[in-house]
Amino acid sequence: MHNFLAERIYGIDTSEIRKVFDLAAKIKNPLNLSIGQPDFPVPQPVKEAIIKALQDNKTGYTPTAGLIELREAIQAFLSEKTTANYLPQNIIASTGVASILFLLFQTLVEKEDAVLLIDPYFLIYPALVRYHEAKMVTVGEDFTKEEILSLEEKLRLEKKKLKLIIFASPSNPTGKILSREQLTELSALAERQDAVIAADEIYCAFDYEKKHVSMASINSERTLTLNGFSKSHAMTGLRVGYLAAPMRYAEIVQKMVTLQQYTMVCAPHAVQWGAITALKTNIDSELKEMKKRRDLVYNKLSAVTSLPYPDGAFYVYPQVPIDSAEFVTQAIEQRLLLVPGYIFSANKKSVRISYATREEILEEGCEIFCKIVNENKER
Amino acid sequence: MHNFLAERIYGIDTSEIRKVFDLAAKIKNPLNLSIGQPDFPVPQPVKEAIIKALQDNKTGYTPTAGLIELREAIQAFLSEKTTANYLPQNIIASTGVASILFLLFQTLVEKEDAVLLIDPYFLIYPALVRYHEAKMVTVGEDFTKEEILSLEEKLRLEKKKLKLIIFASPSNPTGKILSREQLTELSALAERQDAVIAADEIYCAFDYEKKHVSMASINSERTLTLNGFSKSHAMTGLRVGYLAAPMRYAEIVQKMVTLQQYTMVCAPHAVQWGAITALKTNIDSELKEMKKRRDLVYNKLSAVTSLPYPDGAFYVYPQVPIDSAEFVTQAIEQRLLLVPGYIFSANKKSVRISYATREEILEEGCEIFCKIVNENKER
Repeated sequence: MHNFLAERIYGIDTSEIRKVFDLAAKIKNPLNLSIGQPDFPVPQPVKEAIIKALQDNKTGYTPTAGLIELREAIQAFLSEKTTANYLPQNIIASTGVASILFLLFQTLVEKEDAVLLIDPYFLIYPALVRYHEAKMVTVGEDFTKEEILSLEEKLRLEKKKLKLIIFASPSNPTGKILSREQLTELSALAERQDAVIAADEIYCAFDYEKKHVSMASINSERTLTLNGFSKSHAMTGLRVGYLAAPMRYAEIVQKMVTLQQYTMVCAPHAVQWGAITALKTNIDSELKEMKKRRDLVYNKLSAVTSLPYPDGAFYVYPQVPIDSAEFVTQAIEQRLLLVPGYIFSANKKSVRISYATREEILEEGCEIFCKIVNENKER
Repeated sequence: MHNFLAERIYGIDTSEIRKVFDLAAKIKNPLNLSIGQPDFPVPQPVKEAIIKALQDNKTGYTPTAGLIELREAIQAFLSEKTTANYLPQNIIASTGVASILFLLFQTLVEKEDAVLLIDPYFLIYPALVRYHEAKMVTVGEDFTKEEILSLEEKLRLEKKKLKLIIFASPSNPTGKILSREQLTELSALAERQDAVIAADEIYCAFDYEKKHVSMASINSERTLTLNGFSKSHAMTGLRVGYLAAPMRYAEIVQKMVTLQQYTMVCAPHAVQWGAITALKTNIDSELKEMKKRRDLVYNKLSAVTSLPYPDGAFYVYPQVPIDSAEFVTQAIEQRLLLVPGYIFSANKKSVRISYATREEILEEGCEIFCKIVNENKER
């Protein structure tokens, strides 16, 4: 069929996470620590706002960029959270951050452009880099100034300019929150290279001791802030995410809006009203619960292996003694579902565990994880 | 900025319909006959199904292709409506037919591929053809066998093979329903050229005297059937549409699903339950009302100009004596909003009128339309 379908479509593979999802469906009573969605329900006020919107017939097209009320609420939220002042006309809502990322790559990334990811990275980033035939470069999440400089030297030798820097902090899959110093290094890099920064803050509601710092507070003029409601308000299936741009990148947003006219058209209308309410709805009790789970999992796992300290989000990313794909296969045999680390990193010896689930499951899952680690160590 | 953004993004322009929308927002008390969405509310049972889904926490990710329950309901609907038997694994739901079209083009259409549209065409089709750097070929909506044969001769001389045939019946913008004979000609063309047919049936619920015939009933083996709930159940802003493929095109669906993992992720979850209910919810009374409006508008307009007989959908496409952009400008001065025909056709002397609105507005709008036609005739 290679001559039948468009060549570009062979540049993308089924997400490994989805493969684990599919497996999960076949296993009886699985211990599912693979899934990247909170187990708490959409907060009641958010549900009520969506229901009211439906009852009030807020079901027709919204402006392509999203309801002005939503974009104003996002402006207010980001004004409070960051030192940036994003204007509503430079904000676009779409059907989730994944849609936002695709619109952004289509708008900005050309074949052969260099795109910087922080390894481990969220798996959609490298997939989009490949799909757009761009060049992926990486630094590790504990990068120092020296590493950034040596990356730049490499780019110079290859006569490449950096087009885009993209990362999630807190990180999926490690939970790492980038420090103010690291963000400042990225900001300086963007200035030197005239690069755009896309700061994916979808997990920013989940920070524990170490508080999340927005890239936009370090360099608002270079930073596109990406966020949504899937993780913070458990709205993964309801599909609203957004991007906010500084004035200098107004044209990026305009072109994303134009492309959206022909693709997603708009984020789901009634749900946009729920998103407005979500921006005013705190998740303090959910956060407290999540921290308890984080501590439980971190304590159990760090007794048998090493892992980056999980500052935020709801993932840990422990090292395993064998190749991650093989480890995941052994885990599945004991009905434990994990995501193999090779999809998040060039380093193939870690796995991702999501702790967004009940304590009993976490207890049992961690026990099996530790057992498999120990068995493989002994070999 | 041409060096800053990706070149591809300059291949797409703001939809002219959206420009009229934006104008509409600025005019006081407009007579808006431009908008392609029903004025009736989402039927109550559909709303209730969405609300129940929200209350039951059906808000997480669904399978990428859509809920199996939705795909089975679509299979049942299409089994009844057509002679095809589409299997649930060859059905994909996405965030509207626009999203489906984009996924389809990304999957199937390569640079330089020939794509056949029926002129007048829905404006997204030529935009997607251009965006994918394909070659657009057209026949008029009253095409005969001879025209098809001469198109093929032209393709042969240019050493082109037809990749895709795409059309909406009932048509947006004319309301025309293609006859069984015409569909049979397109089917034969697809067979000779080994082309895929994408039959956009988003308006199929709106047929009046002449009944809609599905392309899938003529040649199910070649036909991708596209449909959704935006028009039939007034769910334009709620974003659910789908594509159903025969077994032979299973790989098209698989690749669309893979791309969807990285883009729209899934159609909005709770709304998918509403869509299941929509498939069982008839719109007989809305249809009766729409027919009355169609008759009113057709009678008034055909007294002053000629227009294709509007078999279905909720549009008419009358000829105007001057360039359509100029006509629309004159109409706006009298607070009448129409869509200029040049975006639907190489023929620039028609406009699109949507009659999905209240009778008083239609009466007044038609009166102004007729006046402007007559004024321009006299010049």
